[in-house]
Amino acid sequence: MTTSILGHNYIGGQRSARGAITLHSLAAASGEAYPVAFYEATDAEVDAAVAAAAAAYPRYRKLPAEKRAAFLDAIAEELDALGEDFVAEVARETALPSARILGERTRTSNQMRLFAKVLRRGDFHGARIDHALPDRQPLARPDLRQVKMGIGPVAVFGASNFPLAFSVAGGDTAAALAAGCPVVVKAHTGHMVTSERVADAIERAATRSGVPAGVFNMIYGVDVGARLVKASGIQAVGFTGSLKGGRALCDMAAARPQPIPVFAEMSSINPIILLPLALHKRGNAIANELAASVAMGCGQLCTNPGLVIGVRSPDFSEFVGQLKKAMAAQAPQTMLTAATHANYAAGIKRLTQLPGIEMLVGGDASGNQAAPHLFKADAALLFNPAAPLEEEVFGPATVVVELADREQLLDFAARMHGQLTATLQAERDDLPAYQDLIECLEEKAGRLLINGYPTGVEVCDAMVHGGPYPATSDARGTSVGSLAIERFLRPVCYQNYPDELLPPALQEANPLGLLRLIDGTMTRTAC
Amino acid sequence: MTTSILGHNYIGGQRSARGAITLHSLAAASGEAYPVAFYEATDAEVDAAVAAAAAAYPRYRKLPAEKRAAFLDAIAEELDALGEDFVAEVARETALPSARILGERTRTSNQMRLFAKVLRRGDFHGARIDHALPDRQPLARPDLRQVKMGIGPVAVFGASNFPLAFSVAGGDTAAALAAGCPVVVKAHTGHMVTSERVADAIERAATRSGVPAGVFNMIYGVDVGARLVKASGIQAVGFTGSLKGGRALCDMAAARPQPIPVFAEMSSINPIILLPLALHKRGNAIANELAASVAMGCGQLCTNPGLVIGVRSPDFSEFVGQLKKAMAAQAPQTMLTAATHANYAAGIKRLTQLPGIEMLVGGDASGNQAAPHLFKADAALLFNPAAPLEEEVFGPATVVVELADREQLLDFAARMHGQLTATLQAERDDLPAYQDLIECLEEKAGRLLINGYPTGVEVCDAMVHGGPYPATSDARGTSVGSLAIERFLRPVCYQNYPDELLPPALQEANPLGLLRLIDGTMTRTAC
Repeated sequence: MTTSILGHNYIGGQRSARGAITLHSLAAASGEAYPVAFYEATDAEVDAAVAAAAAAYPRYRKLPAEKRAAFLDAIAEELDALGEDFVAEVARETALPSARILGERTRTSNQMRLFAKVLRRGDFHGARIDHALPDRQPLARPDLRQVKMGIGPVAVFGASNFPLAFSVAGGDTAAALAAGCPVVVKAHTGHMVTSERVADAIERAATRSGVPAGVFNMIYGVDVGARLVKASGIQAVGFTGSLKGGRALCDMAAARPQPIPVFAEMSSINPIILLPLALHKRGNAIANELAASVAMGCGQLCTNPGLVIGVRSPDFSEFVGQLKKAMAAQAPQTMLTAATHANYAAGIKRLTQLPGIEMLVGGDASGNQAAPHLFKADAALLFNPAAPLEEEVFGPATVVVELADREQLLDFAARMHGQLTATLQAERDDLPAYQDLIECLEEKAGRLLINGYPTGVEVCDAMVHGGPYPATSDARGTSVGSLAIERFLRPVCYQNYPDELLPPALQEANPLGLLRLIDGTMTRTAC
Repeated sequence: MTTSILGHNYIGGQRSARGAITLHSLAAASGEAYPVAFYEATDAEVDAAVAAAAAAYPRYRKLPAEKRAAFLDAIAEELDALGEDFVAEVARETALPSARILGERTRTSNQMRLFAKVLRRGDFHGARIDHALPDRQPLARPDLRQVKMGIGPVAVFGASNFPLAFSVAGGDTAAALAAGCPVVVKAHTGHMVTSERVADAIERAATRSGVPAGVFNMIYGVDVGARLVKASGIQAVGFTGSLKGGRALCDMAAARPQPIPVFAEMSSINPIILLPLALHKRGNAIANELAASVAMGCGQLCTNPGLVIGVRSPDFSEFVGQLKKAMAAQAPQTMLTAATHANYAAGIKRLTQLPGIEMLVGGDASGNQAAPHLFKADAALLFNPAAPLEEEVFGPATVVVELADREQLLDFAARMHGQLTATLQAERDDLPAYQDLIECLEEKAGRLLINGYPTGVEVCDAMVHGGPYPATSDARGTSVGSLAIERFLRPVCYQNYPDELLPPALQEANPLGLLRLIDGTMTRTAC
């Protein structure tokens, strides 16, 4: 199972290293470089990777869903088979603990299996049939049938913080491959050895499954993203990362001769709102759980709770005291990369310098380690039009704000930016008085929680990992869960096509056994 | 039923005319101005219209689907009740014949009824439930439930060529209102009296149905579109019109602090491809039918066939001869506006000046009338990288191109721009040899026809009136048919919410009787 790391780009089933610029995989903790260098893709190599994806697209999109499902299952098996040496490599590059890496590997392979299930279930086809009405007056209606197909090659940008689940074989790749779209992955420079091992796993699965070689491509590089997004063969982009990076890709994609959709998951502070009875009944427990959620994965999670809000009360004061203790008890952890650490330090500095803010827990940590930070900010900062508290600080930090009353809480919810999640800590008896708050939060977030904590994003049919800008670039999508496939599908309609020329999903006899919308009724029968 | 025309903007159930700039409704045939002037919305009025829509949104999106369905039904009734005087007004403004206007009115009201049916069917909710798995190892799964909600206020730009079906109460408005999104319509300056009459019908329906007044707003003006698209309250845009106009809106929307999706239906030449046996068997009939399709509605249809392609043969030569006769027999018709006529004249001039093109049918017509034009172009023009034949000429003109062989036909299909439609004229025995052509067309068009003509866009569940750029700005949408509602919906997920706080679509007892995806299976039962 051991594979040798080459550091070459993956283009249509071949390896290519024609460039002069090399990059190094650095150990997250020590900064030590991996002995093999990685070759940044040249312009020609970026173009070749896109061309390989475009060449594979016509054949791949037409494969029966079962063939694509078998390919995803094969990827899942190959991921599960990555062994101890792989876990050690990921740990070296990311400083994530082994248990987390193993958990993330299972999550990533199960994500592939979920999309395989979606392909076999068949609802992604969106099959709709309106039969001809030859006798309709004043005009006959033709036979019309609609099905969804893959939109074309997708560019996927690996994320730093989930080297498996949001990276080379992550949710964007799984959704695109399920939809029938070849991918060109830009490997994250923070975990290139991991990326190469995962890419090899995908290539083995492709070979075993007999899918076209160009279905999977991967390039290395710092400055290759712009050329990738601008390449005419690319038809959509999946990205997880910073607001600045995601917005830059959106702007490039919108300025192309042919604009394309970008699904960027970018920035969220995931507010936790504490309602009075919950605070009264279990304020200390919430403080302890919340501190664990903030520190989870060294705070390097898109759903990290960055803002904690409650209304002034003795219970709230007690909660803040306990949160301070619980945050101070969290150990420093090594961050993913030196750049992540530098960004965290800059974010902490920015918060510290705000007027009306107090650092309750803080301190330095050595090397790439991050110490947990807790701030308490004046309500005025929350209502500052520049929204300084709404700028995400990526790491184990959170800000507590005490508001004067319920009205102020509603005011804030109404002006808050878009979020991935919004959480209420609430007892049943809290809720009747806060229905208007819930309605407001529905308009601001992709996922609403009552109790629980937003960290931990279940991969399932009902998940929404999305939300209004700047949480994502398009609130109509999700990057986790089976609905993610919809981002990469487009509808096509066939008018008066002979049955044998129709895609099987639309044929009269319903050979795939699909639930279809036929003449306005959902049915699984043949026509 | 007669309403007096005021020329004032519609803002949250009130009329407003604070501006200094007035516009005039000109008769399409004579250019004569309507006696009442229309007030271009001021910046403050544009903002007020958006604010009214934003204020209505929270209440409107929460209305039970049945309430919104009843509102759409009421609009349909009000449209059907518009009488002879209304038809005369539309005819004056657009020069469209009465029969067409009556047909379009029925189409428009039936479109409202289709969306009412969609609301009652309930699949638009996209309800998905994944129950908690408290005993799952290593981590329990929370209860997760997903439903779709309206994205927020939508800006709708009325189209010139369908004063009813793609305008104030057209497909974009119907889809947005169905989705739970208030609208701000920018009335097309080519038919402002028509727009006002339709707006009054919608307001009557809103009053009858008890929906918030700000659900429908309408502004007049030439230069008001940019401010509307840039208004922070607007969350999506629907547009039907030119490539230049649509692209400008896309660019503005992408450059906003919060980018928003634009669904612009823009430019398509709707190729008709003639296969050999069809040409041989019924070339003359195709020529006659095609000429009627090109001339239909004075060629002012998004699906007008602007390009006719076949492979060199005696049958093709005979077909061209017959098409020449049939086109010459089409009478000139008055165009929608003087601007439409000027654009048509410019388009004809552009074609005429191309090297390697021959005008087979042409000539002048008086006033705002357009004479049908038929051109024959060298294949080299089709393969010219500047794609001069792929630029839409809006009006009763088409271009015939004779290709050398099947390979050249496939080459063209592979490099063709995105289209709303692609039509094959084919006998059954033509098709086995052209499967690769069909597969190529699937990647280029939203709707594929065999025989028939693309003019005539059925409003139904299976229709796709969309397609890759530049046909539209986003191939994942359709602006006709019930799938159009998806453009204006976003998913929201509820985690561990008490049943009584969930939207009815997600409640355990399934009070709406929906077909839902529960734990991976589609079912209509309660949980």
